[in-house]
Amino acid sequence: MKLVRYGEKGAEKPGILDASGKIRDLSGIVDDIDGTTIAPTSLEKLASVDIDELPVVNGQVRLGACVGNVGKIVCVGLNYSDHAKEANLPIPKEPIIFMKATTSINGPYDDVELPASSTKLDWEVELGFAIGKRAKNVSEADALDYVAGYFIVNELSEREWQAEREGQWTKGKSHDTFAPLGPWFVTADEIADPGDLNLKLAVNGETRQNGSTKTMIFGVAEVLSYISGFMTLEPGDVISTGTPPGVGLGMKPPLYLKDGDRMHLEINGLGHQQQLVVKKAE
Amino acid sequence: MKLVRYGEKGAEKPGILDASGKIRDLSGIVDDIDGTTIAPTSLEKLASVDIDELPVVNGQVRLGACVGNVGKIVCVGLNYSDHAKEANLPIPKEPIIFMKATTSINGPYDDVELPASSTKLDWEVELGFAIGKRAKNVSEADALDYVAGYFIVNELSEREWQAEREGQWTKGKSHDTFAPLGPWFVTADEIADPGDLNLKLAVNGETRQNGSTKTMIFGVAEVLSYISGFMTLEPGDVISTGTPPGVGLGMKPPLYLKDGDRMHLEINGLGHQQQLVVKKAE
Repeated sequence: MKLVRYGEKGAEKPGILDASGKIRDLSGIVDDIDGTTIAPTSLEKLASVDIDELPVVNGQVRLGACVGNVGKIVCVGLNYSDHAKEANLPIPKEPIIFMKATTSINGPYDDVELPASSTKLDWEVELGFAIGKRAKNVSEADALDYVAGYFIVNELSEREWQAEREGQWTKGKSHDTFAPLGPWFVTADEIADPGDLNLKLAVNGETRQNGSTKTMIFGVAEVLSYISGFMTLEPGDVISTGTPPGVGLGMKPPLYLKDGDRMHLEINGLGHQQQLVVKKAE
Repeated sequence: MKLVRYGEKGAEKPGILDASGKIRDLSGIVDDIDGTTIAPTSLEKLASVDIDELPVVNGQVRLGACVGNVGKIVCVGLNYSDHAKEANLPIPKEPIIFMKATTSINGPYDDVELPASSTKLDWEVELGFAIGKRAKNVSEADALDYVAGYFIVNELSEREWQAEREGQWTKGKSHDTFAPLGPWFVTADEIADPGDLNLKLAVNGETRQNGSTKTMIFGVAEVLSYISGFMTLEPGDVISTGTPPGVGLGMKPPLYLKDGDRMHLEINGLGHQQQLVVKKAE
């Protein structure tokens, strides 16, 4: 199933794509695409619904982030061997994890803010997933049972704030609009192998990132298992698994986003995102 | 006002202390002590309630974390000049910030988990506060208007996980039970000067921390204003402002918490916390 959230920001309704790609209204069946809806028993029930009987959502609607009421966003840093090489950094011995504020969550086609004082705003296409059931000290063998579904994340990062403003990456990762999620929440049964997906990101039509989750150092199961040893993951929590090579920071000389830039992201099977970068007054 | 949340974990009810220190049931008036209830207009309404008309909560009840439905916990690191000196680290030029998972939130008297694989669990008494209204790019002059109230935080930290397991402090800060909040949510009007409060922490009756917010490097207003430039703070978000000297990591040799240890924390005007450390099987 491909689940979506549509409508005005903060008032999104749940929807599902039908076989022709039209959005059908799910609001008669579930309240939101959130931790409750993506629990295994709830997804099973949804799978038995006759989609073609649901009302079609007509016209152009805004798509919101594909998961609502997210409790936390945990990200993995430097998780692609070719990206570590590009950044001239050693391959981590175990996953580097950090958090992104949930207030940074945004729709897949919404504008991305370039804050007034930002000089080094960078892109990062990443494979994201959401937790379907409470995970604490989960083994790697069992870990995929806890993944409800997958989606694209643009894990936007202000590099000066991240690395040059007294340590801890959170500072550069958490601004409003720095976490577009979606367009679709693709249930895990539709992704045969999360370790074999192509990821692409272009800026103004020029390809900047073109990688594969094949070069991930720590795969989805390992990442989930690892994080669940340090903190409990709850239904609706989001994990973003790291970015392949081609970020602005890694270019020579580095290249950062500017007012008016357009980003286009895609991962096969998960659809695409597109965002306009808009400079904000202080 | 001193607001509390009482009852079983996950099903706490809102309460308020009366003049004699008894808990009065607020559940007929508000749903929870959360971002909605601590908004300025809501607190104004609460202040006009005749507390003595409310039902007394009889018997021994568990106190939960004093704020519910917390969106994020943002912490300040190395924010006391005497603690930076103890840790042999330079005084930060601007606040160091990091996040703690909201799943770490716990009641002020609940047991603290010593995870099976933990060897360096450390205490940190801190002044915490919660946001009363949405704060984005707030000036230092206006910042205190956004503080709804204050409380004690035990900002528990696993030092090996924090510093020796591939960077980023979040890993050592986020385990379940690592953020006891409370006992009381003390509304900001009752704290004449958050920059002049004594903080104490004892382990098994021995004083380990005995400091004052007078030695904070960045005060409450500066911290709130600073964070609001990097991420939007929402009603119910929690900020923890850093710890004074006397943590286990700073002792020679370092001393960490073990199964059966008892911590006692207090900050004047904000009550006290007490926790038993309980070793968990894997």
